Amino acid sequence: MTRQTLNRKIHDKKSCLCVGLDVSPVSLEMNKKIIDQTAPYAVAYKPNMAFYESAGWEGWKCLEETVSYIRNRYPGLFLIADAKRGDIGNTAREYARTFFELMDFDAVTLSPYLGYDSVAPFLEYKNKWVILLVLTSNPSATDFQMCELRGGMPLYRKIIETANAWAGNDRLMYVTGATQGELIRKVREAAPDRFLLIPGVGKQGGSVEEVMKFAGTKQGDVLINVSRSILQSPEGPGPAARSFAGIMSPFFS
Amino acid sequence: MTRQTLNRKIHDKKSCLCVGLDVSPVSLEMNKKIIDQTAPYAVAYKPNMAFYESAGWEGWKCLEETVSYIRNRYPGLFLIADAKRGDIGNTAREYARTFFELMDFDAVTLSPYLGYDSVAPFLEYKNKWVILLVLTSNPSATDFQMCELRGGMPLYRKIIETANAWAGNDRLMYVTGATQGELIRKVREAAPDRFLLIPGVGKQGGSVEEVMKFAGTKQGDVLINVSRSILQSPEGPGPAARSFAGIMSPFFS
Repeated sequence: MTRQTLNRKIHDKKSCLCVGLDVSPVSLEMNKKIIDQTAPYAVAYKPNMAFYESAGWEGWKCLEETVSYIRNRYPGLFLIADAKRGDIGNTAREYARTFFELMDFDAVTLSPYLGYDSVAPFLEYKNKWVILLVLTSNPSATDFQMCELRGGMPLYRKIIETANAWAGNDRLMYVTGATQGELIRKVREAAPDRFLLIPGVGKQGGSVEEVMKFAGTKQGDVLINVSRSILQSPEGPGPAARSFAGIMSPFFS
Repeated sequence: MTRQTLNRKIHDKKSCLCVGLDVSPVSLEMNKKIIDQTAPYAVAYKPNMAFYESAGWEGWKCLEETVSYIRNRYPGLFLIADAKRGDIGNTAREYARTFFELMDFDAVTLSPYLGYDSVAPFLEYKNKWVILLVLTSNPSATDFQMCELRGGMPLYRKIIETANAWAGNDRLMYVTGATQGELIRKVREAAPDRFLLIPGVGKQGGSVEEVMKFAGTKQGDVLINVSRSILQSPEGPGPAARSFAGIMSPFFS
């Protein structure tokens, strides 16, 4: 899927909502219910591998079946494998096969620490995306991501400026946590014409309005992920997703 | 397993060999053969998750069965899940459950980019280990790991100095690639009394003698991983493992 196509889908639905499929313990039936209820309001789904792996091989089977279910029932949605992988070249190729061939994900999240050759095997797949971690939403994100390099640039910015040269804006986007608007603004400044995937809204404290204000571009270029605030909503995932999409819609009018 | 126990096993076997169980495509029968042939010469096994995941849920089943096979047949070996995970707290807990409860690994490799709270859930398990990536053996390791911070310290060293405070030397060790002796020396200097897990020997170009010279301590404190040079050896994995252990043995006499 190209950047233009994804932006068109966002404008058509007036929503940049990505639903995190992180039910614990994992359950195909539960995933189907969540997907059926939220699909009218979402453009993307993002299962986090950790929740499936902790159920063993049956968890992986559930993941494979969940991806197939979305592909067959709701074609055109953007599917993100939240894997945060990062390994040397021959191993990275195995991970790329897993997420792009064995399962038909559109995108996979990767950790930047091993550098270009840990990402390159994923970029060989046409029409697939790499989503690189730059700033995360956890408290310890400051341990290393904000380290100041010689010359004054923080590490996360060095990663953006380096990775901007690895692939164009139809193939590579960044993850930046929603919990601090000022930081989102800085990431947007370093990547003015790329998609940003933004987790941390809801339970983790980020607000949709702030994210839209700092991350959105004229074209859109933003996916806001919500997991727990939708999955654990007392009103149910459908109404919760509709409510999040409702806050987003004015930005796409 | 404590540092002392692991060092005792190394001295008893006169080998610090870790065998990388990365057969492609994965096969339980093949893993059993490799394990049976190499167990007399190895103190540790390290399956890399990527190779199992790319075979889908059947690959995960093979991984679970491989771990059980080693545990039942060869008790006392040190089992490393080469996963290179790194995610926020509630997700990290799921990964920790996967590797330490669902499967009985002794250790898991983690990426440092998300900082302390992405590692902490693994450290809650007594007698289990975190193996943190600091310097990897791939060419692009220089992209970020070697970035010079304000004050002149390279990022990988900042990570070691920070993580040294996260847990003692019975719980936390580091990964450092074998391809440059001088860098191994620097990692050893920053972590004088901790285990180092060293991949990159063999196919990737590192030599056992060089690794032992720069990484070894009086106690031992080193695990050398060999994957392809054992698995793909024309003489077979048993003789190849024996030959690697033979090069190591003088260092433990």
